[in-house]
Amino acid sequence: MKNLPKAAVIMGSKSDYEVVKPCIAALKKFGVGVEARVMSAHRTPDAVHAFAADARRNGFGVIVAAAGKAAHLAGVLAAATTLPVIGLPVQTSLAGGLDSLLSTVQMPSGVPVACVGVNAGENAGLLAVQILSAGFIDLAEKLDAFKADMAKRIAEDDAELQKLLQ
Amino acid sequence: MKNLPKAAVIMGSKSDYEVVKPCIAALKKFGVGVEARVMSAHRTPDAVHAFAADARRNGFGVIVAAAGKAAHLAGVLAAATTLPVIGLPVQTSLAGGLDSLLSTVQMPSGVPVACVGVNAGENAGLLAVQILSAGFIDLAEKLDAFKADMAKRIAEDDAELQKLLQ
Amino acid sequence: MKNLPKAAVIMGSKSDYEVVKPCIAALKKFGVGVEARVMSAHRTPDAVHAFAADARRNGFGVIVAAAGKAAHLAGVLAAATTLPVIGLPVQTSLAGGLDSLLSTVQMPSGVPVACVGVNAGENAGLLAVQILSAGFIDLAEKLDAFKADMAKRIAEDDAELQKLLQ
Amino acid sequence: MKNLPKAAVIMGSKSDYEVVKPCIAALKKFGVGVEARVMSAHRTPDAVHAFAADARRNGFGVIVAAAGKAAHLAGVLAAATTLPVIGLPVQTSLAGGLDSLLSTVQMPSGVPVACVGVNAGENAGLLAVQILSAGFIDLAEKLDAFKADMAKRIAEDDAELQKLLQ
Amino acid sequence: MKNLPKAAVIMGSKSDYEVVKPCIAALKKFGVGVEARVMSAHRTPDAVHAFAADARRNGFGVIVAAAGKAAHLAGVLAAATTLPVIGLPVQTSLAGGLDSLLSTVQMPSGVPVACVGVNAGENAGLLAVQILSAGFIDLAEKLDAFKADMAKRIAEDDAELQKLLQ
Amino acid sequence: MKNLPKAAVIMGSKSDYEVVKPCIAALKKFGVGVEARVMSAHRTPDAVHAFAADARRNGFGVIVAAAGKAAHLAGVLAAATTLPVIGLPVQTSLAGGLDSLLSTVQMPSGVPVACVGVNAGENAGLLAVQILSAGFIDLAEKLDAFKADMAKRIAEDDAELQKLLQ
Amino acid sequence: MKNLPKAAVIMGSKSDYEVVKPCIAALKKFGVGVEARVMSAHRTPDAVHAFAADARRNGFGVIVAAAGKAAHLAGVLAAATTLPVIGLPVQTSLAGGLDSLLSTVQMPSGVPVACVGVNAGENAGLLAVQILSAGFIDLAEKLDAFKADMAKRIAEDDAELQKLLQ
Amino acid sequence: MKNLPKAAVIMGSKSDYEVVKPCIAALKKFGVGVEARVMSAHRTPDAVHAFAADARRNGFGVIVAAAGKAAHLAGVLAAATTLPVIGLPVQTSLAGGLDSLLSTVQMPSGVPVACVGVNAGENAGLLAVQILSAGFIDLAEKLDAFKADMAKRIAEDDAELQKLLQ
Repeated sequence: MKNLPKAAVIMGSKSDYEVVKPCIAALKKFGVGVEARVMSAHRTPDAVHAFAADARRNGFGVIVAAAGKAAHLAGVLAAATTLPVIGLPVQTSLAGGLDSLLSTVQMPSGVPVACVGVNAGENAGLLAVQILSAGFIDLAEKLDAFKADMAKRIAEDDAELQKLLQ
Repeated sequence: MKNLPKAAVIMGSKSDYEVVKPCIAALKKFGVGVEARVMSAHRTPDAVHAFAADARRNGFGVIVAAAGKAAHLAGVLAAATTLPVIGLPVQTSLAGGLDSLLSTVQMPSGVPVACVGVNAGENAGLLAVQILSAGFIDLAEKLDAFKADMAKRIAEDDAELQKLLQ
Repeated sequence: MKNLPKAAVIMGSKSDYEVVKPCIAALKKFGVGVEARVMSAHRTPDAVHAFAADARRNGFGVIVAAAGKAAHLAGVLAAATTLPVIGLPVQTSLAGGLDSLLSTVQMPSGVPVACVGVNAGENAGLLAVQILSAGFIDLAEKLDAFKADMAKRIAEDDAELQKLLQ
Repeated sequence: MKNLPKAAVIMGSKSDYEVVKPCIAALKKFGVGVEARVMSAHRTPDAVHAFAADARRNGFGVIVAAAGKAAHLAGVLAAATTLPVIGLPVQTSLAGGLDSLLSTVQMPSGVPVACVGVNAGENAGLLAVQILSAGFIDLAEKLDAFKADMAKRIAEDDAELQKLLQ
Repeated sequence: MKNLPKAAVIMGSKSDYEVVKPCIAALKKFGVGVEARVMSAHRTPDAVHAFAADARRNGFGVIVAAAGKAAHLAGVLAAATTLPVIGLPVQTSLAGGLDSLLSTVQMPSGVPVACVGVNAGENAGLLAVQILSAGFIDLAEKLDAFKADMAKRIAEDDAELQKLLQ
Repeated sequence: MKNLPKAAVIMGSKSDYEVVKPCIAALKKFGVGVEARVMSAHRTPDAVHAFAADARRNGFGVIVAAAGKAAHLAGVLAAATTLPVIGLPVQTSLAGGLDSLLSTVQMPSGVPVACVGVNAGENAGLLAVQILSAGFIDLAEKLDAFKADMAKRIAEDDAELQKLLQ
Repeated sequence: MKNLPKAAVIMGSKSDYEVVKPCIAALKKFGVGVEARVMSAHRTPDAVHAFAADARRNGFGVIVAAAGKAAHLAGVLAAATTLPVIGLPVQTSLAGGLDSLLSTVQMPSGVPVACVGVNAGENAGLLAVQILSAGFIDLAEKLDAFKADMAKRIAEDDAELQKLLQ
Repeated sequence: MKNLPKAAVIMGSKSDYEVVKPCIAALKKFGVGVEARVMSAHRTPDAVHAFAADARRNGFGVIVAAAGKAAHLAGVLAAATTLPVIGLPVQTSLAGGLDSLLSTVQMPSGVPVACVGVNAGENAGLLAVQILSAGFIDLAEKLDAFKADMAKRIAEDDAELQKLLQ
């Protein structure tokens, strides 16, 4: 799949890796090139800024940013690029991640972040694929197949339930 | 700008129009074709479903869905298309729209929604532009100019403040 | 009990089965016919829509829908039927299911959902029985007996406590 | 419409009347007999209890209870009847009625309340109609017509928007 | 201690006993007579009502009511007595008991409940003792001693910490 | 009414006076002596401490403390007296006073506060009367009359509604 | 007052000026030099970064940062300096600023922000003065006088209340 | 490091020690003298008051106060000193410590507390060091080194991730 932009997956701390893993897996499953990085909005702000500023030029088409608590990573990336930035709020002990969610989604006017659910790693990856699918009909077709497959699995679960309840 | 996909802006009720207006304005400002519609996940589900199912084929590259309270519109659209769907939660009296926000963002695995902040109409439009900018270098350049312009306005506000405080 | 309408119990994912079990048990205990299904508002929207649209004609008198997070299942069913739809929000890690609860209960005007408590499977079943009891005096009598039995068990617990505290 | 059970609409305070009005209107629009009462779970508990205990015998098929803050009215009614009780939480200044909502919906096992959204008076009425519609095909047909009418109004709003945006 | 009124400790379910135990212990420690009961606002409303209505006549000076979720027990008791009723909200999975807390404390004007913290069994007992201490100088003196003892234990903990940190 | 203890009503700021007024009125209506004071846990901690430490000796039987935001006033008073302290959380802009409520009610073990609802001034006064009513049969009788009067007013509101709806 | 470090007061948008004004006033009242700036974490990240990185060298001893919603300003400043950064969350429509508060206070380990209350502009200024007071005995004395003055005003309010209630 | 003020670390209960340990560790790591104490705003208010009133005179430059639930400790200390007081809210079962957080941060005008995140012990210590760093260039340099070290560790985590993903 020539020329397909890559996806960057940035996590604020290596402890976010478990949340990010299904995101990377989803991207790879659809044949999207992934560069995964540990970079922190608060501990390595220069690295974050430099990465974002050059991301489009470096062949990225979308950035996923996973962070928890006062989760600024997605916002800080979005401040330095015009690529779409997907925010992936990580679960915390405060109401299960309400802090991460609000810190990611409530961006000021002019600098949007595309927020997915708390700990929704797979969805972050799928959204990235959907975003890249505009100019890449192959991806759109794979997404259709993925959707059909999900429906099939639900139907199978339903069939299994019918047996269980007989 | 030939071949640039259009953006659909769906609102669940005509009362959401004020929230949606800056979204439409942002899209038009960047030269993106907009089709704005009133369609309800709960009152006209068939129309919503049909629109989403055909959206990619009909030349759309992204869908924005504005809804409040148990805001299912974005999710229902996302269930029927593989285009990226941007959820725009509308402010309510329950904690200022916490219901709309959670109903939009906390999607189950497999069917992501790209959620922006409560009442963040302009950001929904800008995110749509960013999503479309992948294959359209003109949009990326316009977004850079927009970013520079925002920075300039902040600098002007700062200069004005310095005068005020002298 | 001739002509008594059946109850449908829909779960959005097979992982919701544990929450739904006491609902099915309650319905069966009262002699109500149950059809339990796995169907997803987001992954098999057509199946959900078709089921709801035909439910009254197919002999159902009430539908219970269990789902978590951005829990649209009850709302999507309610959009396609005029039968009463009971929403059963499933517990999540976000504040213990506040997302499921708000997504289920805060329906827009015109399309109500009858929401019970988070993970309140037994209550969803009992509410379904109460709804069906209007035209079926047998059910009303069984519900009276059930209420009397609950009171008796509380009285027994109280008696046991008195022994414990002597 | 012979034999159609009546609906009771109980409000905890006359200040809840504005919230309850669309509920009464919806019931009357569908030809359901309504008895509206001011009775308080905390100030006139005996009246509430007596009303609920006799409600089925007195020809009621469903009870709507509107109350705010520590909204016990629906629960107290549900404790004394096996009729379905619809809880209508009234908006307050605490997070817009989160107190009313949780006090109404989070009922203990064995005594369900069918909760609708905060201040959702019309939905409380519609849900009552849906509940009564089981044995009354006329109501089901009227509900179908109501649903079609809602869809038509959304379509009209959409058409109006298209004009506005031309 | 002649004539000292008794305290009633009511729990809505025997599963609340662990939360109530420190309350009973505190009352006994201060020599207050305790009658502990399992009675449910929703399952045995008549028993609750009868108990409250006669409580003052039966020698009670204060009532503690422990309940969770839509915790109506304290409110239902308060509706039927003019004795002070202490509400003890029990922890739940919804934000750790925010439902129990709001259902207990947000009482309508005219029928107050004296709410303590979530799962604060000991405090419920101590508050009951404080309430009874008005006319009973012995209780006031014991409370002073208890307060002095608490201070002493904190001082001991502090001394221990100093050793630990040396 | 000889020997009846007085009630102290402390507000953290004169801006809380509107919330406190119905509390003072309720106390006076029942013939309870009231001393109302402006004293701040944070700005005049010594005055607060001194007042509380001497309150029982000075003839007080109960203290009401009204404060907002990080509402420490009730807790600080409770730390320095063994009289029952009623906490009256004042409404704020943060979720309507969730901060005041939690700061007042969630007291550590050993130092209870009797919390009433947000802005529930009348209830704070009534609870104070109930607390004092233990040894004062006159107060208990007046409370019974008050309860009967409330019931009568609800019945009148109900009668009025019946006329309105005819 | 020679050598006293200056305070920087940064606001994310000129619309935050009303919240920041009492902060500037408090600093000036204590003779602290203030530099107030409009700079945005998301719109002018480079300016923010540069300002923070040089702030200590440029004679600042403390930075106050006011921002709302996904309020990253304080955190972004704290990432680039080792000066103490005071976060001043600005009120929003989401639960009154819960988003601003959590985004400001829940910083990851290693990069603290000193958060004050929502819209607590005066407190942000006073905290800055307290922070600077360590090496500047004059400031400590002024703070003592300020504290005494607050106490006096409360006492005056109390005296006024006594007159009012006579 | 002559003349460097000490830091006081106060915990409301010895059960808070685990949260406070990283705070003490951070202070010691930077060579700041620490006095750690168990003192309770509610159980030993006099000790707290006396400590705070004399703290500056006794060579302290900053106070850290860790407490949970209705966490008044920081506020009570701040009421009695003009030193900067850092509030460290301790995690609880109510929404993960929302009670502790709001009770700590939402201080009334005139008496600020510098609040850090829930259970953010290390950050409380670091903030104390930053506050003391104004007049002590050695501390500022150590903080720079600490910041560089954090960045280095993130870079190492990133390098490790690259290996893992190869």
